[in-house]
Amino acid sequence: MFSSLTFIEFLTILGTAAFSISAVLAVNKQQIDIFSIIVLGIISAVGGGTIRDCLLDTPIFWAEDISYIYIAIVAAIIGFYSRSLLTRKWITKAYLYIDAFAVAMFCIQGTEKAWSFGFGLPIAPIILGTMTAVGGGIIRDLLLQRPSLILSRELYAIPIALGGTVHAMTLAYAPEYKGVSAVVASALIIYLRHLVIKNNLVVPNWAVINPK
Amino acid sequence: MFSSLTFIEFLTILGTAAFSISAVLAVNKQQIDIFSIIVLGIISAVGGGTIRDCLLDTPIFWAEDISYIYIAIVAAIIGFYSRSLLTRKWITKAYLYIDAFAVAMFCIQGTEKAWSFGFGLPIAPIILGTMTAVGGGIIRDLLLQRPSLILSRELYAIPIALGGTVHAMTLAYAPEYKGVSAVVASALIIYLRHLVIKNNLVVPNWAVINPK
Amino acid sequence: MFSSLTFIEFLTILGTAAFSISAVLAVNKQQIDIFSIIVLGIISAVGGGTIRDCLLDTPIFWAEDISYIYIAIVAAIIGFYSRSLLTRKWITKAYLYIDAFAVAMFCIQGTEKAWSFGFGLPIAPIILGTMTAVGGGIIRDLLLQRPSLILSRELYAIPIALGGTVHAMTLAYAPEYKGVSAVVASALIIYLRHLVIKNNLVVPNWAVINPK
Repeated sequence: MFSSLTFIEFLTILGTAAFSISAVLAVNKQQIDIFSIIVLGIISAVGGGTIRDCLLDTPIFWAEDISYIYIAIVAAIIGFYSRSLLTRKWITKAYLYIDAFAVAMFCIQGTEKAWSFGFGLPIAPIILGTMTAVGGGIIRDLLLQRPSLILSRELYAIPIALGGTVHAMTLAYAPEYKGVSAVVASALIIYLRHLVIKNNLVVPNWAVINPK
Repeated sequence: MFSSLTFIEFLTILGTAAFSISAVLAVNKQQIDIFSIIVLGIISAVGGGTIRDCLLDTPIFWAEDISYIYIAIVAAIIGFYSRSLLTRKWITKAYLYIDAFAVAMFCIQGTEKAWSFGFGLPIAPIILGTMTAVGGGIIRDLLLQRPSLILSRELYAIPIALGGTVHAMTLAYAPEYKGVSAVVASALIIYLRHLVIKNNLVVPNWAVINPK
Repeated sequence: MFSSLTFIEFLTILGTAAFSISAVLAVNKQQIDIFSIIVLGIISAVGGGTIRDCLLDTPIFWAEDISYIYIAIVAAIIGFYSRSLLTRKWITKAYLYIDAFAVAMFCIQGTEKAWSFGFGLPIAPIILGTMTAVGGGIIRDLLLQRPSLILSRELYAIPIALGGTVHAMTLAYAPEYKGVSAVVASALIIYLRHLVIKNNLVVPNWAVINPK
């Protein structure tokens, strides 16, 4: 990954680091040591892609390029020691946008990888793309015994799945535009996440069990 | 799956739908949106078989036949919008019996698939068959932060494992009767589940830690 | 495994049994039946190695040698019926040391197996080795809805990872000494665990979020 650092590679590093730092942000009142933070950081960063690669029966991406693990470890350690900084309001906000970039990128990459394997076309690549983006965070939350996004009304996975759907439709009907589509679908995810973050959007009551 | 709809295929569709709808029934007082219900429905329906296929190192069954995913999605949506109906007493009862059919079928199919791979004979196929039937529900309950059947004294997995054992014994000693055995072992599971449902049977105190 | 019982095989049986019995010890006040204990015992004993083999894309070890499952089942049953014995102080202490042996052995075996596959050298084998040792227990705790070692300050995984690191360094720089290293790295894990058990060592406050 480091041999020739392109823009995509820079984004991948940023995204991996953002996912790993989420482990620090996910800790609420629990006592967690730095070793657990590193473990949770690695899981947050590569968990979703790991399940994807298991399902695709292809070599696990971080075994092919171990730098993902190094990035996750370094980011988790930096996150651990800069925890007081991370709770500052503008950094929290900046983090949400870096996270939006990261989920967009990982979803589109995951969708495209699954599509290239012809895995359960046309809908399974969307599932695997979304899982790439959110799977690690869900395992992290299980291990932290906190409610995962499955139990949250925040619009988090839905924008991701929509972006994955746009990209899958391009791959199905206009594969020659897949480069453009990767950018457009990512931008869509980021824009939708921006709307959600800015306006605190949640799933409306009519689409929720026990809305209260 | 849909090309020529045999009786087995009809049962598979019914069973997949029943497993998916379990996601709606598993929600107690939590706020869950329809997107989460669809995700949980898919996981309930195909989770056990997915782990089985990973362990067998064979292509994931729903990637080979994506209609399982469509059935799970449609069933979850129908379940979401007919939630008030699902709590009616006779429907709850009917559901328990459909579920009994489903777990019986998935256990026998899973046992037979693992056996055909020569996977850890003779006992691993029983484990994988039982896992096919109950694995998705266990992941669903983990994600919903509710106690799974591991923590329940209800006789749910034991009848399933018994049916799997009967079928595995046939595959070992009288493979020429495997068709008959599939029916007999399924019937055994359904009958045992019927007894459990009818009489509210639980594991007796002498076989329980902290029986109270 | 049983054909010619070497010392290593004896240790493997002892370690597998110790991991399986951990399922009985992990039950606190919950009502758990013997069937669930057997399931949790199997998961505790082979869970970590199962994930390792999935990631390595190699046949699951217990499908290649089903005796691991039999040992786990028998140990879980014995553990279930001798539960009152297991809470005696000297047995609890003895158990901690048998567990230390088991995690040391499984970590070193896991590290070496991953290394032999060239899986994400040089750091991924340490991760997979540690996962082999602790993965089953983490899944067990998830299913029991109790906090896993991720949420504990006890020095459990860190000694294991250190031993794995020592062994990985030998495999990298002096592979001709891997036999010696396996013994030394295992002894290091057991010695560090001994210090932790004897002195009730925990991760120091400066390396913990929310130390209190």
